[in-house]
Order: sequence, then structure tokens, then C-alpha cells
Amino acid sequence: MRFLDAGETHGKCLIGILEGFPANVKINIENINRLLELRQRGYGRGKRMEIEKDRAIILSGVRNSYTTGAPITIMIENKDYVNWQQYMDPISCDTEVKKVTIPRPGHADLPGCLKYGFDDARPVLERASARETAMRVAIGALCEELLRVFEIKLYNHVIEIGGVRIRKEYSFDDIGLFEKAQDSELFCIDREVENDMKKVIETAKKAGDSVGGVAEVICKNVPFGLGSHVHWDRKLDGLIAQAVMSIQSVKGVEIGMGFEAARRFGSEVHDEIFFDEQKGFYRKTNNAGGIEGGISNGMDIVIRAAFKPIPTLYKPLRSVDLQDLKEKEAAVERSDTCAVPAGSVVMRAAVAYVLANSLIERLSGDSLDVMVDNYKRLYKE
Amino acid sequence: MRFLDAGETHGKCLIGILEGFPANVKINIENINRLLELRQRGYGRGKRMEIEKDRAIILSGVRNSYTTGAPITIMIENKDYVNWQQYMDPISCDTEVKKVTIPRPGHADLPGCLKYGFDDARPVLERASARETAMRVAIGALCEELLRVFEIKLYNHVIEIGGVRIRKEYSFDDIGLFEKAQDSELFCIDREVENDMKKVIETAKKAGDSVGGVAEVICKNVPFGLGSHVHWDRKLDGLIAQAVMSIQSVKGVEIGMGFEAARRFGSEVHDEIFFDEQKGFYRKTNNAGGIEGGISNGMDIVIRAAFKPIPTLYKPLRSVDLQDLKEKEAAVERSDTCAVPAGSVVMRAAVAYVLANSLIERLSGDSLDVMVDNYKRLYKE
Amino acid sequence: MRFLDAGETHGKCLIGILEGFPANVKINIENINRLLELRQRGYGRGKRMEIEKDRAIILSGVRNSYTTGAPITIMIENKDYVNWQQYMDPISCDTEVKKVTIPRPGHADLPGCLKYGFDDARPVLERASARETAMRVAIGALCEELLRVFEIKLYNHVIEIGGVRIRKEYSFDDIGLFEKAQDSELFCIDREVENDMKKVIETAKKAGDSVGGVAEVICKNVPFGLGSHVHWDRKLDGLIAQAVMSIQSVKGVEIGMGFEAARRFGSEVHDEIFFDEQKGFYRKTNNAGGIEGGISNGMDIVIRAAFKPIPTLYKPLRSVDLQDLKEKEAAVERSDTCAVPAGSVVMRAAVAYVLANSLIERLSGDSLDVMVDNYKRLYKE
Amino acid sequence: MRFLDAGETHGKCLIGILEGFPANVKINIENINRLLELRQRGYGRGKRMEIEKDRAIILSGVRNSYTTGAPITIMIENKDYVNWQQYMDPISCDTEVKKVTIPRPGHADLPGCLKYGFDDARPVLERASARETAMRVAIGALCEELLRVFEIKLYNHVIEIGGVRIRKEYSFDDIGLFEKAQDSELFCIDREVENDMKKVIETAKKAGDSVGGVAEVICKNVPFGLGSHVHWDRKLDGLIAQAVMSIQSVKGVEIGMGFEAARRFGSEVHDEIFFDEQKGFYRKTNNAGGIEGGISNGMDIVIRAAFKPIPTLYKPLRSVDLQDLKEKEAAVERSDTCAVPAGSVVMRAAVAYVLANSLIERLSGDSLDVMVDNYKRLYKE
Repeated sequence: MRFLDAGETHGKCLIGILEGFPANVKINIENINRLLELRQRGYGRGKRMEIEKDRAIILSGVRNSYTTGAPITIMIENKDYVNWQQYMDPISCDTEVKKVTIPRPGHADLPGCLKYGFDDARPVLERASARETAMRVAIGALCEELLRVFEIKLYNHVIEIGGVRIRKEYSFDDIGLFEKAQDSELFCIDREVENDMKKVIETAKKAGDSVGGVAEVICKNVPFGLGSHVHWDRKLDGLIAQAVMSIQSVKGVEIGMGFEAARRFGSEVHDEIFFDEQKGFYRKTNNAGGIEGGISNGMDIVIRAAFKPIPTLYKPLRSVDLQDLKEKEAAVERSDTCAVPAGSVVMRAAVAYVLANSLIERLSGDSLDVMVDNYKRLYKE
Repeated sequence: MRFLDAGETHGKCLIGILEGFPANVKINIENINRLLELRQRGYGRGKRMEIEKDRAIILSGVRNSYTTGAPITIMIENKDYVNWQQYMDPISCDTEVKKVTIPRPGHADLPGCLKYGFDDARPVLERASARETAMRVAIGALCEELLRVFEIKLYNHVIEIGGVRIRKEYSFDDIGLFEKAQDSELFCIDREVENDMKKVIETAKKAGDSVGGVAEVICKNVPFGLGSHVHWDRKLDGLIAQAVMSIQSVKGVEIGMGFEAARRFGSEVHDEIFFDEQKGFYRKTNNAGGIEGGISNGMDIVIRAAFKPIPTLYKPLRSVDLQDLKEKEAAVERSDTCAVPAGSVVMRAAVAYVLANSLIERLSGDSLDVMVDNYKRLYKE
Repeated sequence: MRFLDAGETHGKCLIGILEGFPANVKINIENINRLLELRQRGYGRGKRMEIEKDRAIILSGVRNSYTTGAPITIMIENKDYVNWQQYMDPISCDTEVKKVTIPRPGHADLPGCLKYGFDDARPVLERASARETAMRVAIGALCEELLRVFEIKLYNHVIEIGGVRIRKEYSFDDIGLFEKAQDSELFCIDREVENDMKKVIETAKKAGDSVGGVAEVICKNVPFGLGSHVHWDRKLDGLIAQAVMSIQSVKGVEIGMGFEAARRFGSEVHDEIFFDEQKGFYRKTNNAGGIEGGISNGMDIVIRAAFKPIPTLYKPLRSVDLQDLKEKEAAVERSDTCAVPAGSVVMRAAVAYVLANSLIERLSGDSLDVMVDNYKRLYKE
Repeated sequence: MRFLDAGETHGKCLIGILEGFPANVKINIENINRLLELRQRGYGRGKRMEIEKDRAIILSGVRNSYTTGAPITIMIENKDYVNWQQYMDPISCDTEVKKVTIPRPGHADLPGCLKYGFDDARPVLERASARETAMRVAIGALCEELLRVFEIKLYNHVIEIGGVRIRKEYSFDDIGLFEKAQDSELFCIDREVENDMKKVIETAKKAGDSVGGVAEVICKNVPFGLGSHVHWDRKLDGLIAQAVMSIQSVKGVEIGMGFEAARRFGSEVHDEIFFDEQKGFYRKTNNAGGIEGGISNGMDIVIRAAFKPIPTLYKPLRSVDLQDLKEKEAAVERSDTCAVPAGSVVMRAAVAYVLANSLIERLSGDSLDVMVDNYKRLYKE
């Protein structure tokens, strides 16, 4: 599989094309819309979220809710475009009014202008904006439609915001909590901690500041054998790391025990191997986070990412005007105070794509029937 | 650029082919050998390092020390192969004697066997072994030959082992220390800390255990504009994350402030922008670690990775025999106690490849003269 | 660069995303529409062409007619969709009425059904249809906007239909004729021959049959140095061959003298090399068709393709019903009698994409200014 | 799958790495050597063929004659290197003596020098030389080891040299003839025609000239469903066209009826569809050459390629000296008079790679057992 996505934050729409998706998979558009809706939620979001209620529109590759093997196109309209067409129209528009000449620290503004030779960050920020992640979520949601057939489930939750962190680690035994987390305002399993997280967000908001955090994605029922140890660029952990690190604001990725594993002895880290007639090979611990040697080992895949605070501050940092090279305050674009909950959904979608792609490679991917058949023989016999 | 690498840990040799490297770059083979030698050093290494003194042999793509634009082949011979040919010969050998049927927790052994349908982990571990990283180092060293022309320099150092961490952060102002670090046994800038690290390693060794750590790579003089914000899979941080996470034992990657950024307010994280006639745009801080919006911003690129302890323990963990499915102690292959210093060199090489590749994309890459010319116009005029 | 395209022949629209196009290129949407219109013309086209007047709608990546470096999305609406939505709607529709169970010989119908496990060729033919080529033309037209800046021009003409062939070879000295050809009904330079071609088409049409032909694309001012000899998959002729052979109905591709070169002595084939202060290196003949060793040599690139007759015949061939496996007459879908003129436009677009992509690799492609600058230094100094 | 190959014609060796080949495939090295030997045969070859007796040396990815899933490295030594090391050594050599400053028309010499900024064609011709195709043959032969398990067989034969052409078309009913063809000096099925071909070659040789021809590859038992109609770059015919056109000297590729199809009516071209309990769907004709809509249809895949005469003439053409820009006679490198028989072997290997790759995609490709199992269910039940 492969996909390309396109679209500007104030453009007409976001578009994604996913090529290589198997035929005969039933798509429930409401599942996609639900994940899009999750992305838009979260305490600490700005006004934009009230304007846009993202809905996926499928334009190709699906007929009567079943995929055909042809490339799938998804479109998400930008409701805000009516207010922006005069400044963003592809053919003819006014490019002076909405100029952004004072780049925001922490954003693509300055390096983007330098790279492409612009003196206006508008064309950079329009594409660099996290608005693009709505399409990544839609693509990932489509992938989850496939994964669900194989009972592979993904959950995202927020484990830390502004230094406030959940008080224990959760596993899939806590499954009910995960479901509940998605009804919380911050996707946090622990409501008490969530309250403290809100307070940090509130503090940041009042100060015109922003705040980051850590999100976790847990993937249940991933079969062993995805990815491969034979070449570096086929390792599942590497593929996941790229997908997650490329999400706006992510500055760190870890799998399983992650950085903590660097502080321990091997005997405390590696998950001993057991066998049971019913379960096959299994582990009693999952410090590896479901991946050994670049290959899924059948345990839950556990990924965490660090999100830096959003770079747009209402109380702006110092910057330089590209026009006169004088020191000025950075531009202020409408923005959120904390995007970690949304980020956790994007992260989940990014991982879903990698898993679906690896599953197709493993089971061959012309049509779902063949995949299911291959799955049964490989894993159930 | 692209490369494929091949070879088993007890096979005849490691081989790598690098395609797309520009013509007319002068290659000093001793620089490559020096990096190979760095990879082999480090307190806590096992006996293998005494057997192998890795030397790169160039087989194609270079003539009279200048690249020709043709694919470059590097070979590193495995000195140990004479002892192993009878068990590893491609055409005919004894595959019974060296069977490994008790997979080691934390290694590719078990998922590799399950994926490929083996009842012997030998063919898995032969390829999954970190021996493969010698070739990745050679490829990266070749890339450094190109980067050096543009004064881009990479340093690797070890900042934490088994919980013992350096006491402050170092920047490139500490440049002399970096150079010196590479003469240390653990590539640690702080000799006092290094002594404590050695003690941890010694403790682990005596216990038949292993120990992990954290390494850092700093890249100096990376020009702005590498990578791009326009598509997720062109983001420089994502590409670096994949390259680093795919290194054996790595369980976490962070860039700049990394996970710490998740705990701070935006005003504490984002690097304010300044301008100076001489320096152009610059920052006084570098929390972003040189990358904003997936694009290099001209500051030092700073990457850290968490290495888990080596999975082969002399005091083995519990596992299951693939032959009779009974519980047994895991296999013991000759191994090191701590591979973090070596890992730091591999990490540097992995990053060098990504940077060289991005530089070629940015400057076009048929021949060095054209690259240098493009560089001057883009960055010096 | 890379692109994905999507859409069904009776679906809502065709969509294409082109990623990696340089910033700051001026796009004239009318140039794209003109090429789309050329594709729809041609004596021997069926009724569909009267329904659809294709217009490219740009949805992203362009602002005020200048590209931004972001992925460019083009949409072409299918006017016919209003009549088909009840049978083609992605979410809910009637899939019984428009079933195609008797595959047409020569079409993807049967192998497509077998591959994807369908008992209805509808989902296959919807995507396999040459309607898809409208998007390839739009993508190619976009590429021509870039090529035009470097004075690279492409012309397509038809040189043979149903065995009727032009009476001499034409070169770019015949440039006026090429321009004129595009006003002809069959894109044939020789009006007398064109009349004979029409007669063949008329004969085929009356017989409920179809007819094929040969088209040629000539590319003027292609600079030397596109493609490379160093690896098979970077050779320009190979890339062109794939792009052209993948066009619906193409069964043969040749470059320069093509198959005729197989019948000659080397001394009759190879183009001697000359040098002139003004022109630089040049040739007096162009049997190589502008490519030697997989690299453009500065002469016109000349490509010809053989188009088989359209597989849909109004007087159908024998086939088998997928439902009862009985022999029946093949399905009849609305179709043209001769699609070679349209095919020549698609071929031109396919080649334009390959050339633009190679040019970007050669000159680096972040923004047009840098490309122009690099071009001047490489070719004009 | 993917592969990179490397090596110069007078360098130490040729090297290829094939990544993604399934595990557990039995490799008979003699089959590879036999195809290498076939490539070296052929009336009209020059002296080089007597020096080199190519033998494949496997360096990785295979153990005790079974593949392990790891990247496979093949090396072919250049026996002639002992005579050339002083001019070709990667580290230190004399680059003056073997300078080639008068480019040969029809060769990569001139465009290669212009592209890479060389004033000496030596580094270009060393890589552009058809010597490289020995490695492509080895890679293809490896792929045939996999294809053979599925009873997919490829044959290559020469159907035309210098205008002398076989007198009828041959199909796989003529299978014995194909086998015999490979014992002929020109791989021509018809011995009388072969004699005439030899005469043309003799004539060319005496005149210091060279001569081209047409070769054909027929692939038996290719299962339906390889390739796909859903995206242009997944079409099997396009992939084959690239692979074949990228072979040195090829100027044209056609599939099935090829260019002749352009001259016929649809009713004469398309292969009617029949069904039989035993055979399943079948055709009585195979004008499509086994591919419809970019997908294999279960019939024999038939590909023809036009090879231009070798560009190196002993009676050289006019050219220009790169040093003084004066008109001179082109350089003479040791060369053959006719390379079409060798070319037919390379073509076969190029096609074998494409088919093996497509088969792996269709059946999934971790290990042979799974592939065989999938094959049975898809094709035998």
C-alpha cells in the first residue's frame, strides 16, 4: 500500500488517495467519521474545531460500501474555505492580505520559507498545519476497517500533559478503561489525573501559552510475523517510528519500555518465553512492546510519543520580520492550547496504516477472502 | 540514494551497495576504517571484537579514490568465517550442529522463526545479529565523506549507561570534548561519569547480565532546508527516526528536547528567532534539535536513542525449546555486556546516510562539482 | 515526484495527486484543459465524448496560479455520474442492474475478475477503462507547464491507423505541421493519408468492429543528461517504456529507429557526433531517438507506440458467462471505434511526466528559481 | 523484492543484492551458471567471452543451498581484472593510460560524460557496458529457481538478425525446438534461417561493422492475476517493458501481436474466451501475449525486443575528441559483432525478475511453503 495526501488548512479540502487496499472489505463510513470526530475533541482545543465537523467523503475505490481493489479517494471539506477563498483560490486570489512575514518559533514557517525561497510563510503554514492530520486519521481509520476483520484493535490514550502523568501503567486488561478514555475530554484513563491535566491547560491558556504531553497507542491482537529482521527498512519498529515522528509536534517516540529500558539490566527487561497448548508462545511481561528484532511477536504493540507544546502562542515569542529583518513578535494564528489528545488519535491512525500495510504484505492483499483464508492457515491451524 | 546490505554474522562477509552517490567525491578509505574501528571499541565488548578487525574493501563505483557515479560496493570480510564455513557454506554445509532451538527473549529468534517457518533460529540470528551494523557504519562513513565537503560534521557520544548519566548537556561549544570522547572507552565526555558507567558494566558482567544506555549524535553545520513539510514521508525527523529505531536494540528516539518537551510550556520550548548580518537567521537555544516542521533549520541536529540491554545473557532467561515445546534456559551466543558505545557509532552512521541523501535531493546529485556550486549559491550568496 | 490517480469511469470524478512538484511554477489551467480537450477529440470517438467536456479543477498545491511545493490535487468530474449514482454510489447503491458477467476479449474483464475474486466485471472495467487516462493527461499537462519554462516541447501525432501509414518520417523541422496536426481530426500531419485513415475507421465502424494504429511523440529541446546509465531502473528509455506500455491498448513501444534498427548494420544506425561552437555537440541524424545508454543526448526524443484496436466491439466476439460458464457473446459497453488519436495525447502526457521527473532530479526541484539557475549554469555557460 | 547491482566491466567483479526473496527455496547454483554460460555463447561474440567463464558465487542469504529470507548476494568475478587493476583499482591507479576521449556514437560515452562532467568516457563505459548484464542474468536465474517450483518456464530465442527472420511464429507446442534452440549458436529454432543469420554476421564482421536483431521470450504456465489494472505502475506489461527496454541496445519492446496489432481490426486481434471443466478459462489464440488490462490472463506471456547493432565498430564512425573538440574517429573497445543471442538471455532474466516479483506479491512471500500453499488454493482448488 501507499498513499498520498494533499490539501491546505484554509484550502477547499483535504484529499487522500490510498492505493493497494484489498478488494471486498466492507467500509463503514461512520467508523471513519467517528475517528475524525475523536481527533477534533479534547479540552484545550481552539475555535476552529467548532467550525469544522469533519466528515469523510469517499470519491472512488468503494462501491455499495465494499472496496473494489481500486485506489480509494477520501475528501474532507474545509468548511472555513468560504471565508478564505478570496485569499486561497488556486487560480486567482489576493496573496497580500494574509501574508505571514514573522515566522513562529517551533513551526515550519522559517525553514519552509528558506527552503522554498518564499518571503511569506503563508504557503508554508497552510500545508505544515496540523489540519493535514485529519486526512491521516481518515486513512488510518480506513486501515482499521481492515484490521478489525482480523480482530486487531488500536486504542489511544493520553498519559501525560504538562508534567502531570498517570499514576500507573495500563495494559489491555484495563480495556474497559480505554473505551471510557475515549469519552473523556483528554482521553485520559484516570479521571483524577485528567482534572489535574485540565488545570495545567487552563494555566497555559491564561498565560497565552501552550502545553505538550505524552500519548500512548496500544494495539491488541497483532499477529506475529509483521515486519522483518532481514533489512533495516523492513523493521516494524522503524516503520512505526517514522510514521509517528512525522506527526506534527512529535519530538520523541518509544516502543514498549522505551527509554526506561536503557536504565535497566537485561534480566529486568527481556520478556521470558512460555508456551501453552491453547495460547501458543506467550510472555508474562511485555517490556518489548510487542516487537523483537523488528518483527511483531504476538504481544500487544505499545508505542508512546512526546508532543511538544503547540508553537503558536497567543503571547508570542520573539522573532524576525522577513521583510525588514527587524526583531518583532511572532505571528499569531488561531490555535489550540493543547493538542495532545488530538495527537493521540493521529498517532493511532499512523500506526494503523503501518500495521495494515504489513499485514497485507504478510497475507498478500488482492482481496479480503484470500487474506482471511491465509490468516486462518497461518494462525489458526 | 538507496542502499541494500547483506551478509550473515558468521557468513563469508558483509556486503553493501550504495546507489545514487554523486561522482567525483574523494574517498579516504582510512576514514571508513576508522569509523569501523570505533564501532568495535568500547568497554564491555565481548571476544568477537578481538577476532574481527573490520576493514572496508571497495569493489566498485570508485576509481583511484574518486567516485564515478556508479553504484559503490563495500565488502567487509568476516575473519571468523574460516571456523564457520562448515556450518554456513551457501552451497553445502552441516546445518545440524549449530542449531539454535531455544530462542532468546528480546531477540529476533522467536518471531523470526514463526514468521519464516523455521524450527531453528540459526538463519534468523545470523542476519538479525548486530554484526550487520558494521556495514551500516561503512555506508554511513561513505556518506560522511560527502558531508565533510560541506563541513557537515557528526559526533556520537554516550550519555547514559545503566542509569548513570552525564551531569549536564553538552553542545558543540564542547567540541574538543567530543573529539576526546572518541578516545574514551565508552565515548563518554565526562571521565568521572565514565568510571561510574564502567562499574555498572562490571556489575552486569559479573552477574552474567547485560546493560543498556542512551547515546546522542550531534550534527554540526547542517544547512537549512533538508527534508520537507509538504508530505509526511519527506519529513527529516521521521526519516531519522526510522533510521535510528531500526538499529538493533533501540527502543526509543528523540530529537532536541525530546520527551522533556512534553513536560514544558511552549514558551520554555520554542527557540526564538534572531537575525544577524553575518550569521543570518539564528537561535540562542536549540530545543528543537535543529528540525522544525520536518525541515532542518540550520541549527545543530541533536538525536538521542535508548538502547535496551543486549538480549543474550550468560545467565540465561527462561524460554521454550522449539523442538519439544518444553521450558528451557535460553541459548547463549557469544556476546557483549554493553553495546551502547558501538550503538552510538551505528546511530551516527544511520543519521549520516539520511543527511547525505537529503543533501543530494536538495542540491541535485550527479557530481560533486555541481553540488558544491549549488551549495554556494544557495547558502553563501 | 510521484503521483497517484484514482476514480472510476462512471464514478463521481477522477482524482490525481502529484507530489514533489517544485514551488513557484505558474500554472495556466487553460493549457491543462486544452490537452484534456485534445484527448477527447478524434474521428471515430463514441458518444461519451459528447457528454463529457473534461475540465481540470485544482484543489490544492496551487495558489493564485503559482505552485507552492505542496502536493497538487486535480479533479475531473464525470458529468455522466448523475445517471450512474444509483449503480455506483460508494456508500449505497444497486449492484445488480449493471452487472457485466460476460467478459470482453482483450479487456481486463476476465483476468481482473479472476485476480480479485469477482463474479461481476463491473468493478474491474470501471477502473480499467481508458477514462482513467484523462487524469494521466491532466498530470502530464501540469508537467508540461514546468517543461515549457525550459523550452521543452512535446508533440503527438498519429502515423498509422489500420495499416494506413504516413508516407515519410517527419522531424521537428516540420514543426508547423505538428501544430496543424493538432487541428486535424486524427492528429495526422498528412491530410491525404488522414482521409484514407478515416475510411478505414468508417469501414470498421460499419462492421461493428474497431481499429488500432501507431502514434508518435516527439520531444524538442530536452537537455542532455536526463536518466542515467548507472543502474537499470534509472535509464530514461526504460522509464519511458513503462509509462507508455502501461497506457490502455498499447502493445508495443519503440524509441528512435526502434524495430527498424534491428534490421540494419551498425554503421547505418549510430548517429555520428559533431561539434560546433554555437550548438555544442550535435548529430546530423537521430536514429537513437535522443537517448543513448539510458541518458538523453540533447537530440529530440522520439517515441512510437502501437495501439491495438479497442476491445469493445459492437459486433461482439465469443466469450463465456461467468454465472453459468456457458458460451455467450461478449458484453457491449458504449465505446469508440478508434482511440489512437486520444491515445497519442495520453502517450504525450505519460512522457511529459517522465521528463519532468528526470529534469527535477537533474536540477534539484525545491523551487523553480533554483531550477532555472541550475539549468543556466549547466547548459548555458 | 528489489535488487541493486554494481560493478565495472574491467573492475574486480560484478555484485548483486536481491532483497525480499522468500525463504526455503532450494537453489541449484548450476542452473545459474548455465544461464550465465548461455549469455556468453553465440556466434559473433568477441574475444572477451573466451577470457571470462562466468560463475556465480553466492555470498549471503543462502545456506546449504536453501534461501533463508535474508538478502542474497551474488558475485561474479572479472577474470580480466588482473590485467586491469593498475588502471582500475578503487584506491590507487593510473587513470591516464586508458582514457577514452573520443566517444562512440550510439553508446553512453558522450551523454554520460556530459551528465557527470567527465572529460574521459572510461568511468562511463566501464559501467554502461553490457558486461553488467551478467549480473542481471544471475539475478534472473535466481528468480527462475523460484518460478520453476510453480512450473513457470521461460524460453528465449532469436527470431531475426540483420533482417533475416524466422519463417513462421512458434508457440510452446514447439517446445522441443526451444530446448534445441538453446543448443544452437544463435538460439534460433530454424537451422536454415540460422545459417543465413550467420552469413549476415560474417558480412558485418568482415566490414568492421555490427548487426542487430530481434529476440523473443516466451513464459509458460504463468498463472492469471499477476500485475493489476488498478494503477498504471502496477501493470505487468509496463513493468516488463521497463525491464526489457533498460537492457543495453534495446530500442523496442512488444507484447503478443505487438506492432502488428496496430494494423488489424479488433475482431482479428482479441482472443475469444472459452471455458472447459479441465482447463478452466482458455483461449484458442494468444494475440494478447498473455496480458490483458495489465494482468496476466493465464496464457503464455510473449515478449519481443529489438536490439540495435552494437555501437562499437572496428571500422569506426566519426566523432569528436573531448580534449580538443576536433573531429576524429570514434574509440574502439574490444567488442562483439552481434549480441542478440546474449541479449535474448538477458531479456529472459529481466522478465523472470518481474514475474517472480509479481508472483511474490500475489502469493505473499515470506517462505516457499506458504507460497505453494497459497498457490494451490488459488489455482488448484
